[in-house]
Amino acid sequence: MIVSALLTSVGINTALCVLFFTCYSILRKQPSNYKVYVPRLLAEGISKRKNRFKLERLIPSPDWVAKAWKLSEEELFSLAGLDGVVFIRTITFCLKIFTFAGIVGILMLLPVNCWANQMQEFDVADFANNSLDVFTISNINSGSNWLWVHFFAVYIVTGFICLLLHHEYKYIASKRISYFYSSKPQPHQFTILVRSIPTSSGCSVNDSVESFFKELYPSTYLSHVVVRHTSKIQSLLSESKNLYQRIAQLRSDPSQQRHKLGDCFGLFGQNDQLVDRYRKQLKDIEENVRLEKSEASMAGEEARAAFVFFKSRHGAATASHMQQSVNPTQWVTEPAPEPRDVYWPFFFESFMRRWISKLLAVVATTVFTISFLIPVVIVQSLVNLNQLEYLFPFLTSILTIKFVTQIITGYLPSLILQLFLKVVPPVMRLISSIQGYISNSNIEISACNKVLSCTIWNVFLATVFSGSVLNQLSVILDLKSIPWKLAVSVPAQASFFITYVVTQGWTSVLSELFRIIPLICSLISKPFTSPEQEIDVPSIPYHRDVPRVLFFGLLGITYFFLAPLILPFLLAYFCLAYIIYRNQFINVYAPKYETAGKFWPIVHNSMIFSLLLMQIIASGSFALKKLKPASAWMLPLPVLTLLFNEYCRKRFLPVFIAYSVESLINKDREDQKDTGMAEFYGKLVIAYKDPALLPSQYSSNSESLITPLVS
Amino acid sequence: MIVSALLTSVGINTALCVLFFTCYSILRKQPSNYKVYVPRLLAEGISKRKNRFKLERLIPSPDWVAKAWKLSEEELFSLAGLDGVVFIRTITFCLKIFTFAGIVGILMLLPVNCWANQMQEFDVADFANNSLDVFTISNINSGSNWLWVHFFAVYIVTGFICLLLHHEYKYIASKRISYFYSSKPQPHQFTILVRSIPTSSGCSVNDSVESFFKELYPSTYLSHVVVRHTSKIQSLLSESKNLYQRIAQLRSDPSQQRHKLGDCFGLFGQNDQLVDRYRKQLKDIEENVRLEKSEASMAGEEARAAFVFFKSRHGAATASHMQQSVNPTQWVTEPAPEPRDVYWPFFFESFMRRWISKLLAVVATTVFTISFLIPVVIVQSLVNLNQLEYLFPFLTSILTIKFVTQIITGYLPSLILQLFLKVVPPVMRLISSIQGYISNSNIEISACNKVLSCTIWNVFLATVFSGSVLNQLSVILDLKSIPWKLAVSVPAQASFFITYVVTQGWTSVLSELFRIIPLICSLISKPFTSPEQEIDVPSIPYHRDVPRVLFFGLLGITYFFLAPLILPFLLAYFCLAYIIYRNQFINVYAPKYETAGKFWPIVHNSMIFSLLLMQIIASGSFALKKLKPASAWMLPLPVLTLLFNEYCRKRFLPVFIAYSVESLINKDREDQKDTGMAEFYGKLVIAYKDPALLPSQYSSNSESLITPLVS
Repeated sequence: MIVSALLTSVGINTALCVLFFTCYSILRKQPSNYKVYVPRLLAEGISKRKNRFKLERLIPSPDWVAKAWKLSEEELFSLAGLDGVVFIRTITFCLKIFTFAGIVGILMLLPVNCWANQMQEFDVADFANNSLDVFTISNINSGSNWLWVHFFAVYIVTGFICLLLHHEYKYIASKRISYFYSSKPQPHQFTILVRSIPTSSGCSVNDSVESFFKELYPSTYLSHVVVRHTSKIQSLLSESKNLYQRIAQLRSDPSQQRHKLGDCFGLFGQNDQLVDRYRKQLKDIEENVRLEKSEASMAGEEARAAFVFFKSRHGAATASHMQQSVNPTQWVTEPAPEPRDVYWPFFFESFMRRWISKLLAVVATTVFTISFLIPVVIVQSLVNLNQLEYLFPFLTSILTIKFVTQIITGYLPSLILQLFLKVVPPVMRLISSIQGYISNSNIEISACNKVLSCTIWNVFLATVFSGSVLNQLSVILDLKSIPWKLAVSVPAQASFFITYVVTQGWTSVLSELFRIIPLICSLISKPFTSPEQEIDVPSIPYHRDVPRVLFFGLLGITYFFLAPLILPFLLAYFCLAYIIYRNQFINVYAPKYETAGKFWPIVHNSMIFSLLLMQIIASGSFALKKLKPASAWMLPLPVLTLLFNEYCRKRFLPVFIAYSVESLINKDREDQKDTGMAEFYGKLVIAYKDPALLPSQYSSNSESLITPLVS
Repeated sequence: MIVSALLTSVGINTALCVLFFTCYSILRKQPSNYKVYVPRLLAEGISKRKNRFKLERLIPSPDWVAKAWKLSEEELFSLAGLDGVVFIRTITFCLKIFTFAGIVGILMLLPVNCWANQMQEFDVADFANNSLDVFTISNINSGSNWLWVHFFAVYIVTGFICLLLHHEYKYIASKRISYFYSSKPQPHQFTILVRSIPTSSGCSVNDSVESFFKELYPSTYLSHVVVRHTSKIQSLLSESKNLYQRIAQLRSDPSQQRHKLGDCFGLFGQNDQLVDRYRKQLKDIEENVRLEKSEASMAGEEARAAFVFFKSRHGAATASHMQQSVNPTQWVTEPAPEPRDVYWPFFFESFMRRWISKLLAVVATTVFTISFLIPVVIVQSLVNLNQLEYLFPFLTSILTIKFVTQIITGYLPSLILQLFLKVVPPVMRLISSIQGYISNSNIEISACNKVLSCTIWNVFLATVFSGSVLNQLSVILDLKSIPWKLAVSVPAQASFFITYVVTQGWTSVLSELFRIIPLICSLISKPFTSPEQEIDVPSIPYHRDVPRVLFFGLLGITYFFLAPLILPFLLAYFCLAYIIYRNQFINVYAPKYETAGKFWPIVHNSMIFSLLLMQIIASGSFALKKLKPASAWMLPLPVLTLLFNEYCRKRFLPVFIAYSVESLINKDREDQKDTGMAEFYGKLVIAYKDPALLPSQYSSNSESLITPLVS
């Protein structure tokens, strides 16, 4: 790849950025798009749907950028919780390390690469026609002592990243503790979840839970709630919700609806009949739900799991930490998630079933990750130029233009890969959800790890070793030659990954800002939705966005000494991400639950992995360039990095797993002074009620459906 | 190797066995050897030193075999504790699996191997000149369908071993729990050890421990003891002990001593002067000890570690399980070992120092294990025939005899390896002891693992890949080709390992019976020891004997389908071990501490590793023999084995790590009925006193030293 091609790509994408920013600045001001761009403000009642037209609505204004920029960490914390803070700190962390690495790379490594000629000299006169390889380590002669500059750069940057990692881990751990100290009493702090409750004949789960915990924790046990099988009720309820919404829709603005639908299809003239039919159906379902509920409240539908409440945080923590029963596969305890965070559909009860589902999830993830590229490659091979011409004959004339064919052959495979990659986060979330986790947050954390490894395997390794699954596997299995093979293949892909950052990276954050899919959905569904319908404020899908940011971090760390030219583009990416995600936290997303920073260990591990990968590549590169001492002296670095990681695991990780006795007891003491605790205990017992067993909000007797059709 | 050579070896070793058994039967009856062969009975006062001569003392009698055979498991438990039971059960476990594998191997595999000719047919007429390879899998033609017999044998034996492993794990776990239930209140159940206690200026460790635990555990905290630095006192005390013994020896039988010593060296005529000088020295040392002790009891010598006592087992367990402080590297708690089990010399206090010492231990173990063979090979190459002739010219005439040279060239290298292997257990114990464990039992468990891996690496892998360290490493690092290389190399060493079992295995248990080293020591030291000297009852060095038994288990499992001929010899080994170790538990060893069966997980893991190794070799062998489907269908087996192991880890391992809340609370409830608990609490507080700080038993004022020299 030559410089001019890169410049073209950068130019096109910069123009796209400006265009998107401008469009967004205008579109976000249109009241019809409020649901897409400011759902959070809408739900909080800060923005009102004003239909009055103003000229300024059509003029792009950058005030949202300023607002996002000025947001302080405290404000962000109140808006997005500790998880939001951790996410933004991940981006600023990357900004910091790549600024440092950028200074080292551009001022030290780039000049060395350009003027230590192996392949060709850097041609200042004809700048645009230089190959990009001039800027990479490949340009340096074998055995050249200039490579020591790279050697020291690797050491310095590793040291800097480790220092910063330590600082961040410490900061976020302290944030987590102070979050705990400042929190009000919350139900999940006083609750544990018990599974695999053994049942003896003639004794209900309810009774055995009560007798067991009263026996073991006489002073701290408060009460409990047995989980019930409600899958049937859940499906009935979702059906009734659909019906309810359909009726409400038909009734809300009958004249308009009749007009529109009549216009479009000419089929639905008799709304009254329809509403009546729906209402009848709704009543039937309600009757069923009532029957099921009364059944569920009987002992027969008890699941072998229960939420057990304690009088103190320390009591709950003690019970969740220790093995309760002589048989470790019975009475398995764990800390309860927040009530809003509970994932109700999947309450695996028995130890064996949970274990098997976990194994299946591991197998599914591995198979999916390893064989992900197979359909991609097949689709890419099917959709080639000839096929296109055959399917769409009218394209023939266009496809003969060289520029168009270049774009299609260049972009199409990458586009197909990107489309397939979009499928990864939801699939991984699905796999995680059958893994037996009982909270959405745990599902998301688990999915985050899976998406990250899938991305690294399928984008990084597949590109680098550009080959089949078997090829990749055989490289991985031959441990000895990994550094060598990486050193040969990774620098060769430098220009690919530079353009990857510019094209995929920049556009991915822009599409996040623009919210293309929600925008399209809202445009399509607009005719069918009533404006009074409740606004669904989304929560940020961390399992999609964290791995994306971390993957660019990996690219930056591995390539900073091979091809420092990647760093400015990465910095641009992280700057965009910084502004855009802060804006989204203000306007779009509202947290649905709080893990209190549990995503940071993932970030930390990913950074350590990136560092190790980079050091292995460095060691291989120096060996390849016949600078043996540098290659040998590179070996202590991964060992030191692993030791640093081990230290962090011991020093900080426990804080992210459980709170210490000291903190728990201190918080409990504080509560004892509080007079509101009796009331809190009362609420605690009803906090973990399966939503399916709560009174339905979509009743056929509700006011809106009873009022006569034409009032 | 041919059959006759094997038969010769077996004949020689059987004769040796009979000889050793006879000698032992006579020697054990001599009162002068009681200290070596029945120290336990002597210490318990069951055997008395009878000096009257009887004829029957010279007639070998096998009554000890009958006694060892008849010993029931309850008796063994009372003699050797649960650890002894686990050790003997390991041997019976091996007996069971190799009986089963032996039936399969001898009845099914051996005939198939003999008559499915690849190399040569089995020659019944000239039985003794058959090569041993006739009996191995190498004798079967490539692609022969007879290999399916081996295939099914591998499946059946794996299934049998897993079934038995499950049964044993379950049995020993239940034993462990019932041991806990039946135990009297023991100090270590109520105690935790706290390390890395943070110190603030102006506040002693003592005060901060008290305030911290009173704050966190107001209802269960009882008391505590701060550990003190006593290394100086310890060295002084051992010095005084030496002096004391020397004086006591001189005084005990002055006439005899004077006579003997005067005879031998002609130097020590004036015992009185000597005794006076020693006594003076002893007094000086005592004064020093007194000074040091008074210093140690002051705050300045406090270590940052303490034993903390609780009123209930549950209280202690809770405190030891949970992270106490906000900073996970401070107030690090763990369950306390038994008082007699505490390893006092090494109380690492700070988190960092302990962590670094652990890392150093890991590095030392790895380096020692990997480079163990280097000095062995060097010594082997130095001590060759020419060298021997040069060093000991008088041997020249003997060394010319062919038989002698054969024995020397054949046995010398193996002898040197064996001598070096003898060094492994003490070295590994030393490494484990600096690793920061605070109990002898943990040191032993850790050393046991280290010795096992060192043996497998240096005896099994080094023999199989018969090469340098680098060669072995390169094989291990190339994951893909491991099965193939193993399949090529392992069967080739079959005859070596068969003779290894006969020579090393049989003689190792016999030397255990004969206690050669203690016997020699006792013979040498006899003139210098007074008969009244206290008897030191040894405890069985599990870290030496468990790995040895397990290594033979590994040999049996890996070779049963390759060369079933190994099984009868292994069975003989385990039968010998069964009788001999039971005899030693009766007569020789007394347990010094009780891990309550914690060695079983090591046995289980070793068996699983052996199974996996065997399955990998099987898969490689079938591929090598060009029976692809058998090789492919072998793959599910390791996966199933790993799943089985994972299940056992979840189902049984927790029982070996900690006791459940249910058991703890039940035991605590029992205690509440007990009236002796107040007294127990009183004793508890003084149980964990550094032995160095107790009143000395070797005082210059003690009665025996004050009585005048000639009474």
